[in-house]
Amino acid sequence: MSKLQAAGEKNDSTMYKCWLKYYKLSNKKLLADYKHLLSEILVVEQSHVILNAVKELERGINGILGIKPVISEIPTKEAYLILGTFDGVKGLAPLSEEEKQSIGEEGFLIKPVTENSGKKLLVTGRTHKGLLYGVFCLLRLMQTETKIDAFPISENPVNQLRMINHWDNIDGSIERGYAGKSIFYRNNKMPRNLARITDYARMLASVGINAIAVNNVNVHKFETLLITDKYIKDVVKLAEIFRNYGIKIFLSINFASPIQIGGLATADPLDKKVREWWKSKAEYLYSHIPDFGGFLVKADSEGRPGPFTYERTHADGANMLAEALKPFGGLVVWRCFVYNCLQDWRDRTIDRAKAAYDHFMPLDGLFAENVLLQIKHGPMDFQVREPVSPLIGGLTKTNQVLELQITQEYTGQQKHLCYLVPLWKEVLEFDTFAKGKGTSVKKVISRKVFNNKFGGFAAVANIGDDNNWTGHQLAQANMFGYGRLAWNPELTSGEIAETWIRLTYSNDRDVITTIKDMLLGSWRTYENYTSPLGIGWMVNPNHHYGPNVDGYEYDKWGTYHRADHKGIGVDRTVKSGTGYTGQYHKEMAELYESLEKCPEELLLFFHHIPYDYKLKSGETLLQYIYNTHFKGVEEVEELKAKWLSLKEKVEKEVFIHVLERLDGQLEHSKEWRDVINSYFFRKTGIPDRLGRKIY
Amino acid sequence: MSKLQAAGEKNDSTMYKCWLKYYKLSNKKLLADYKHLLSEILVVEQSHVILNAVKELERGINGILGIKPVISEIPTKEAYLILGTFDGVKGLAPLSEEEKQSIGEEGFLIKPVTENSGKKLLVTGRTHKGLLYGVFCLLRLMQTETKIDAFPISENPVNQLRMINHWDNIDGSIERGYAGKSIFYRNNKMPRNLARITDYARMLASVGINAIAVNNVNVHKFETLLITDKYIKDVVKLAEIFRNYGIKIFLSINFASPIQIGGLATADPLDKKVREWWKSKAEYLYSHIPDFGGFLVKADSEGRPGPFTYERTHADGANMLAEALKPFGGLVVWRCFVYNCLQDWRDRTIDRAKAAYDHFMPLDGLFAENVLLQIKHGPMDFQVREPVSPLIGGLTKTNQVLELQITQEYTGQQKHLCYLVPLWKEVLEFDTFAKGKGTSVKKVISRKVFNNKFGGFAAVANIGDDNNWTGHQLAQANMFGYGRLAWNPELTSGEIAETWIRLTYSNDRDVITTIKDMLLGSWRTYENYTSPLGIGWMVNPNHHYGPNVDGYEYDKWGTYHRADHKGIGVDRTVKSGTGYTGQYHKEMAELYESLEKCPEELLLFFHHIPYDYKLKSGETLLQYIYNTHFKGVEEVEELKAKWLSLKEKVEKEVFIHVLERLDGQLEHSKEWRDVINSYFFRKTGIPDRLGRKIY
Repeated sequence: MSKLQAAGEKNDSTMYKCWLKYYKLSNKKLLADYKHLLSEILVVEQSHVILNAVKELERGINGILGIKPVISEIPTKEAYLILGTFDGVKGLAPLSEEEKQSIGEEGFLIKPVTENSGKKLLVTGRTHKGLLYGVFCLLRLMQTETKIDAFPISENPVNQLRMINHWDNIDGSIERGYAGKSIFYRNNKMPRNLARITDYARMLASVGINAIAVNNVNVHKFETLLITDKYIKDVVKLAEIFRNYGIKIFLSINFASPIQIGGLATADPLDKKVREWWKSKAEYLYSHIPDFGGFLVKADSEGRPGPFTYERTHADGANMLAEALKPFGGLVVWRCFVYNCLQDWRDRTIDRAKAAYDHFMPLDGLFAENVLLQIKHGPMDFQVREPVSPLIGGLTKTNQVLELQITQEYTGQQKHLCYLVPLWKEVLEFDTFAKGKGTSVKKVISRKVFNNKFGGFAAVANIGDDNNWTGHQLAQANMFGYGRLAWNPELTSGEIAETWIRLTYSNDRDVITTIKDMLLGSWRTYENYTSPLGIGWMVNPNHHYGPNVDGYEYDKWGTYHRADHKGIGVDRTVKSGTGYTGQYHKEMAELYESLEKCPEELLLFFHHIPYDYKLKSGETLLQYIYNTHFKGVEEVEELKAKWLSLKEKVEKEVFIHVLERLDGQLEHSKEWRDVINSYFFRKTGIPDRLGRKIY
Repeated sequence: MSKLQAAGEKNDSTMYKCWLKYYKLSNKKLLADYKHLLSEILVVEQSHVILNAVKELERGINGILGIKPVISEIPTKEAYLILGTFDGVKGLAPLSEEEKQSIGEEGFLIKPVTENSGKKLLVTGRTHKGLLYGVFCLLRLMQTETKIDAFPISENPVNQLRMINHWDNIDGSIERGYAGKSIFYRNNKMPRNLARITDYARMLASVGINAIAVNNVNVHKFETLLITDKYIKDVVKLAEIFRNYGIKIFLSINFASPIQIGGLATADPLDKKVREWWKSKAEYLYSHIPDFGGFLVKADSEGRPGPFTYERTHADGANMLAEALKPFGGLVVWRCFVYNCLQDWRDRTIDRAKAAYDHFMPLDGLFAENVLLQIKHGPMDFQVREPVSPLIGGLTKTNQVLELQITQEYTGQQKHLCYLVPLWKEVLEFDTFAKGKGTSVKKVISRKVFNNKFGGFAAVANIGDDNNWTGHQLAQANMFGYGRLAWNPELTSGEIAETWIRLTYSNDRDVITTIKDMLLGSWRTYENYTSPLGIGWMVNPNHHYGPNVDGYEYDKWGTYHRADHKGIGVDRTVKSGTGYTGQYHKEMAELYESLEKCPEELLLFFHHIPYDYKLKSGETLLQYIYNTHFKGVEEVEELKAKWLSLKEKVEKEVFIHVLERLDGQLEHSKEWRDVINSYFFRKTGIPDRLGRKIY
């Protein structure tokens, strides 16, 4: 057991508690108002989920209000909180048909009820899960100093699937994990710390996550055995913990399982024996986990097996699994991250960016109704800046899940501050023009455009067994923000940041303003000192940390910048390039095709540009690169100065922790600045107009 | 057990037998002559070493002559071979005092003796080991069709220490190994295959190796325990196998052993308890292995512990170990590969090339007499082209061992053909001017210049448990060549190649000429398509395989080329650069300092040169880079054509094996050519004068 883990298992640090810190309110009036209402909790129904909701209420009220509420079945006080479903509160609190109709399967209503002798606060919903979400919402509102007269408040999640993907391997390692080892696994054994996993389930439920895939999409030898007797009892234990917080468990599966563990000679999706094998495997899984979510599948990608081996399509592959899961209501979440990773850099006709669309568009409409395609937000791989994948909104007859990456693989690996919500917001607001102007990604994904049966969000987790879960404490904001956005993509980056800061630190105005400021600018800052204008990939191969301008330039992975002494960028136009722009609907295709109209932040993704090209600001491309790289480092210096200003306002442990990370970021941002600037200076021989130091 | 290993353990493949194949001579006359002399072997002394010599004679005579010789103590035939030391053959064969005096401890004399009724062949020497070397020499001469009248022949090794370093870890992995796993270790157990290890000892003895360090210089947790009860019995077994072939065993030790296994709080070399600990450790080792060779030490290098931790010098560190080993005649071989691997690429005042000299020159004369400094041949790290380390011949009062690398870390990793003997020959012939003109490296190392007590050769092995030992069969020539050169550095690259080809394949003139041609040009070919003119390091970091021009350019390891759009190279002059040239004796310092006089093949190592600089050939630097890179690939095509011409002359298995490697080399040489050429074309914008394809 590592030191960090040992500390984590104590569970008593402030950072461990994340946004469920429940510190006492300082506003006396508000404190009194809530105390009056919440000193007693009337619970009219029983279930594990409700039990967890009540426990959370007790924990929250205890912390935020400093009182221990009475839990009762029959009220003893004048004012109290009523927790119950529509059925459960019948006779206790009046609810109109309209009110009930407005609340869906996962929604809730928090409503003051004035009846008889006193005021009550009703937390109700259609389901137990709805109540749980209502409780977390109420506590969030209390902690963020919401006045009582703000109620009633009701909410339904905008998105159906709100999923977390764990790239955890059962040896305990985490692919692209930057916060310690897996909280689930160690040395091929699981689960390893039920208390911590339970805390994680709480954390996820508090932001509305309702599905989790608990193992890496790259399914290795031991992980393949998760769906066998060797591990099924352990998976059942995990499923139980998450179920009690309203979260369904999914497993990533190995497409070659019929061969590797089934003793068959093939995994051909059209082979009868293979189909039977998966059907009996589904029966087996549901006999142990009746509410099992389904399978997450990475097939024919980066060396993983898949239907291509048998000259079958991805529809054949996915539908076979879908057929097996369908009788039980299970889903197949099938990743679209499929491309040829054996490219030749010398061949300019191949473009990795085109791969997902090329592979999946011809299959639109051919997938079974319980198959969901999980599409990475950009056509490459979670770069600091990419256009939105044309597959989203390209597909019209297929269930679509947007894949985001909370773990900061290409955005500083939780050593650098990079609040990702603004990036995700840009993706969500992107207009696909799939059904004319206004067909934003968020609408497509929430099934409002094509009336798909399923849809939603998935994202790769950023947590591990570090005491503070995310390595960098400020990276907790990304996990929080992801959940909040998946619940309601209309929330702004600022709103989410402010809520997170208030929950995590304090309601102090300086703290809120300063950290919000730090968070909101951090993505742009990271972009400034790393790879410019959407070109991406200037990182060290494999681990993807730190600058390496030519790191992928002569690589088989299809990730090039094509810089020479005159210019840089990939011509992806239809007219003279790879033709990628043609994958978008007409409006966006025209925009990207045109050098003049193309949004500048994506210029090098779409066009090969000479260094002396004048940007809208009047600076040349080269000078822009220099300027942004010097600016990026200055901005990190400002980040540090801002944090220093909070010395007296945040806990010492937290202050020191974040300061250390910022110091590291500052040092490393200089490395980025200097490597990138030197690369271009050496290539062009053109000095910085302002005469700053370039090596 | 891998397939390859299983095959290797059968020991019956032609490639497994290397240069000890002992195929039958086709020259009838010669066959008859040798048969006449060698059908009986008179053995007058007994020892394990002599037993092995006799076994080898039997094996060789059986193969080369197709007869089974009689071993006797009293001769039964007219003609026979007499094997015995000077003392042993007294009365059997006359030896003059002069003859005896000319043969040293490891030398031998092979001499026809005509007495009484018939001709005899005497193989004699001062020691049993000398006899063993004599036997291997005789068999080599027979196999290469040496006529009987070429005798008498006598030899003494020119160098005292002729050592092999194994970078084997006891988990079975080999650092920089390209031919399978360790033949010694697997899963922290050892030794694993005594028959194979015995064959290896034979192979080493056949080329005169007399010392072996059996574990990696990076001594990890388990390897630290080799000098404890946990492993000592296993080490004893290894030592026994090698001893019986005249080879002393050395162990690489962990400088922090007193802490890690000794329970002390420090490893300070001036601490009394530490010194006592090492003394008792030496006693322990010699009680188990009376002829234990000593310690090989990598200290304060690339993260290894060392005396710097205690603010002591390397002389302090080495002398402490020397003091412990001295009573038993043990040696401390102390590596000079010490440099700061945390450099900042932005700081041009630091130069890794200067490190070894800077560290060790001030200590010259301060080392105990049983300490030998092991110096890499170049100042960097076994690049395809480097100048010779100025430390060799710089030191005058210190025992010096030249370190070579047989394993092809930077020279194609045994996937590419690269016969390294010509490289080593250049190093050996290099004039250090340490005592005026003619003070070549080979003289310094053989102790002829400074009369040091100890000196010699060490080299990193290129073998593993692949069936053919070296991955690429032609790489066997490097192991063979290393041994031959260490024995006699006057041998030419061609002589060594020819002998190896004859022993390994056949005495067919076409085979000899063709393969010799392939071998002799292969280093230059490899250099042609990789990094030009001594600049080195254009490889992928960590594994060091394949092109990556900027792979180390912004790295902490201090390995830069400084290419910009105008020029490339590192200014290491005293006048305007890092001052490295000043580490050489005057004559060489002046040569390297001068742009005009500097040997062109090292131009970029010493000078930063504009691309339009005219080389002596009249081509510009840039055009030279293009030309050599196109040429390199053409040369690989020629290598392949040459090999194809031997289709009917070499065994099918061998033919196919080498052809596959050459095909891979051809493909990869194109990758090298295209990446390097594209890099410079993109940087300069200057096209190839001959209009060839650059991407």
